[in-house]
Amino acid sequence: MELLKQLNWRYATKRMNGKKVPAQKIENIIEATRLSASSIGIQPYTILVIEDEVLRKKINENICKQPQIAECSHLLVFTAWSNVTEKHMTDYINDIIAQRGVTAESLAPLKENYGKLIFSRSAEQNHIWAAKQAYIALGYALVAAAMEEVDSTPMEGFNAPALDELLQLEAKGLKSVSLLPLGYRDEANDYLAKAKKVRRAKEKLFVEVSAKTLGI
Amino acid sequence: MELLKQLNWRYATKRMNGKKVPAQKIENIIEATRLSASSIGIQPYTILVIEDEVLRKKINENICKQPQIAECSHLLVFTAWSNVTEKHMTDYINDIIAQRGVTAESLAPLKENYGKLIFSRSAEQNHIWAAKQAYIALGYALVAAAMEEVDSTPMEGFNAPALDELLQLEAKGLKSVSLLPLGYRDEANDYLAKAKKVRRAKEKLFVEVSAKTLGI
Repeated sequence: MELLKQLNWRYATKRMNGKKVPAQKIENIIEATRLSASSIGIQPYTILVIEDEVLRKKINENICKQPQIAECSHLLVFTAWSNVTEKHMTDYINDIIAQRGVTAESLAPLKENYGKLIFSRSAEQNHIWAAKQAYIALGYALVAAAMEEVDSTPMEGFNAPALDELLQLEAKGLKSVSLLPLGYRDEANDYLAKAKKVRRAKEKLFVEVSAKTLGI
Repeated sequence: MELLKQLNWRYATKRMNGKKVPAQKIENIIEATRLSASSIGIQPYTILVIEDEVLRKKINENICKQPQIAECSHLLVFTAWSNVTEKHMTDYINDIIAQRGVTAESLAPLKENYGKLIFSRSAEQNHIWAAKQAYIALGYALVAAAMEEVDSTPMEGFNAPALDELLQLEAKGLKSVSLLPLGYRDEANDYLAKAKKVRRAKEKLFVEVSAKTLGI
């Protein structure tokens, strides 16, 4: 299976060689990520795309010291909504109306139910929920990059408040949650390039359960 | 691109037809999910696999009323660690030693740094972090199912505490975070089967930024 082959090929690339990823491959990765599933379908996140070397170097110097930030071709910054607002909900309902050709009336119950769910939660709870949805999209992006034979390194180890300030995210109602440099491995200088992949064993990670095994 | 075709094919299936997914396809989806990236590589989650109809019906009756729970072939329950313990860290370091053939001494700095990160956080913070990693795996599972032409429906709308109790998760240090029924769509009875996919527009979801656009 092509997918398994590519998922075994990918790894958390520690050094990249600065080569540019062709625009079509970036487009495919972006489109795959755009198709991500999310709770209630609202996609409560924005993904910043940073090709600009000046900005990537600034981030590398001040916010995340890992060399891939400077050595990658494109840096994706996954940001999640800091809260979910009435405007978000209205925009989403309008998207459904426009894209699916249904009436606002037919979506009224949906809007009410979603609203009940979302507006009963604190901003912090909504942000955590939004961040989790962004991580589904991160999963899609990782798989899509692997399918395009593009290397990638998901990262949480950065100064998120400093990045939010540099990228002026607060005014946009966003908070950065993960980085994903896209580029090509520098095999000669990457100690992980030839290392065996470590994953939890199938029988530990997956547990089959039934009424019988639970004794119920 | 095969991936984009399959991601456009998949949708949040609302009704399934009860047909069994062949074992090899389930194996492929599980293996792809096992290969998921995670922060520091620790994979802080366990995925329960429920084929048993008796248990799925119990869940459907008492915990999640959506019909796919009973109509699917296999139900995956994504659970995240309720906290990260010393034992988790030791198991992970031992996995690296066994799988990569390196010495415990060479991993001592890694163990210390990871420990500092994880043990400085509250159980609740660690659980949220673990849940986010589980959502990356959920992303992988969704893509893998689509590639196998298996339908799937990620769900958060269930009584998680009741499910945790039924599945006896507390004693295992786990909390359920998402459900993923796998099966086949019942096109005739699923109002969403022919509906147009709604996703945020590319230019809203992805924003290109540079030092220049930020004015810095």
